Amino acid sequence: MINKLVDKIKQTQAPIVVGLDPTMKFVPEHIQKKAFAEYGETLKGAAEAIWQYNKAIIDNIYDLIPAVKPQIAMYEQFGVEGVIAFQKTVDYCKQKDLVVIADIKRGDIGSTSEAYAVGHLGQVKVGSTMCRGFDADFATVNPYLGSDGVKPFIKVCQEEKKGIFVLVKTSNPSSGELQDRVVGTEETKDGAQAGDAGRPLYELVGEQVAAWAAQCMGESYSYIGAVVGATYPEQGRILRDIMPKSYILVPGYGAQGGRGTDLVHFFDRDGLGAIVNSSRGIIAAYQQEQYAQYGPENFADASRAAVLAMKEDIAQALAGRA
Amino acid sequence: MINKLVDKIKQTQAPIVVGLDPTMKFVPEHIQKKAFAEYGETLKGAAEAIWQYNKAIIDNIYDLIPAVKPQIAMYEQFGVEGVIAFQKTVDYCKQKDLVVIADIKRGDIGSTSEAYAVGHLGQVKVGSTMCRGFDADFATVNPYLGSDGVKPFIKVCQEEKKGIFVLVKTSNPSSGELQDRVVGTEETKDGAQAGDAGRPLYELVGEQVAAWAAQCMGESYSYIGAVVGATYPEQGRILRDIMPKSYILVPGYGAQGGRGTDLVHFFDRDGLGAIVNSSRGIIAAYQQEQYAQYGPENFADASRAAVLAMKEDIAQALAGRA
Repeated sequence: MINKLVDKIKQTQAPIVVGLDPTMKFVPEHIQKKAFAEYGETLKGAAEAIWQYNKAIIDNIYDLIPAVKPQIAMYEQFGVEGVIAFQKTVDYCKQKDLVVIADIKRGDIGSTSEAYAVGHLGQVKVGSTMCRGFDADFATVNPYLGSDGVKPFIKVCQEEKKGIFVLVKTSNPSSGELQDRVVGTEETKDGAQAGDAGRPLYELVGEQVAAWAAQCMGESYSYIGAVVGATYPEQGRILRDIMPKSYILVPGYGAQGGRGTDLVHFFDRDGLGAIVNSSRGIIAAYQQEQYAQYGPENFADASRAAVLAMKEDIAQALAGRA
Repeated sequence: MINKLVDKIKQTQAPIVVGLDPTMKFVPEHIQKKAFAEYGETLKGAAEAIWQYNKAIIDNIYDLIPAVKPQIAMYEQFGVEGVIAFQKTVDYCKQKDLVVIADIKRGDIGSTSEAYAVGHLGQVKVGSTMCRGFDADFATVNPYLGSDGVKPFIKVCQEEKKGIFVLVKTSNPSSGELQDRVVGTEETKDGAQAGDAGRPLYELVGEQVAAWAAQCMGESYSYIGAVVGATYPEQGRILRDIMPKSYILVPGYGAQGGRGTDLVHFFDRDGLGAIVNSSRGIIAAYQQEQYAQYGPENFADASRAAVLAMKEDIAQALAGRA
């Protein structure tokens, strides 16, 4: 699947993933009204509204981009009905030949991570039948529980030729509270080496990702990638070097403050190696002053214009780097 | 809800939470057969099987215990149908007046954590109506993204009088890879102080939990608790002191290797302050040699016997401590 992702990035010339992170305040009133008329102001009504909203956006941008990244939290906020809308969204994007990165940030002890890996990427045995659950192409994984919480995902990736992006340095303001902590010289119970002294935690996680990545190579990049926030360009440069074979999924562009010029260090010299996410900057573009002329009725056209502008911003930044 | 949890622990004399973590290999054949006859060897068939399995166990043990902890991964492995079974399980346990701890280990950037908090513990606005999604009583939260990934959960807990357990030191073998890392003396970007030198990461997280806990007090304990694995009793002792007002949710008893005598340090002197989880040790008791006489037909009776044995093991350990 990493090969497909790289091919589609080359073909679209757009190292862009659109975050399908719907929330009611983004959904235009005419879509809400229609959904509520059918299902009432219920979780089912909300789920129908976000599904119709997603569908219109996907229909209008799928030819421009390689991938989408639905954030499952935005669906779980509506309970089971939201999760059904998540599944519909995943399925529809796959029909449109988009690569689907499920932003689930799961991670648990080994046997439990295995269940997540199976449910989101793999197959589960039911009687004598193998069944597929959510069946995304990639998933994001939280490494806080250590390697035995990540390895079950790697195993499923190897079996299914799918991939993961491990959280290394997240885009949010407080990501440094744990991830930037400098690891000292004292030996820890699990035998940290003296060579680990004086380096931030995210570097250690990055090195672990690089080691896993080497075991799961596609044609030019690995099935095992990393998440590094656009809001931390300097860390992006360091981590790009530490993880040469990993694609970097870069959140934090646009609404969170990251700009095209911040992104260049995340990419390899050939313009590959990174894929930049924008969520509300694309899906709620019509609510921005810049795209206000489209109006709520034409929200999906505003999203298309925002994708084109983002593509241009990144292309210019990459062309302009030293 | 922490008050209810403490009251129920006192009333049942059982500081025990049963992990409802079903997987097909635990479900007795007669239940599988019946579910497959109705829905086929499909995700729906599997979901029906785990739901019937859960229900029988709950019916047989609900009077003995204060709380249950469904692990959502074991439901997500069956996709949307599994999530529907998760919701049924949550609802049924609440009907039985059990406190429901949703083991979801969620954590993300602020706006996304807010969606998880709303979906699992709170209410979401749909039009002019407030709707409840999964509606558990407690949730487990992953702190790797820092405080802005946890605070939205705290806000919802304050509004709803619900609670969270933050992962501090998990029970799995590789939990030390990040959590035990000793933080050095160098200043990090976010201004770690010299006083943080030479201490493992889990202590820093524990201190953060203690600070949050102080802001969300119930009668005797806080709405903000912590997860500390039974497999690390020494860390349990340290963290019990660091987080005096937090209930500690202790996984890792039984199948993962933790025993009653390992648990005493997690408790306060009055026998409160900790609640110990057992999952397969209870729900799949009939597959253990010790309870084999019950047979697959009477699996739920075996679970009841295992709860009683666990209660006795913990009571003896607490009675026997110096």
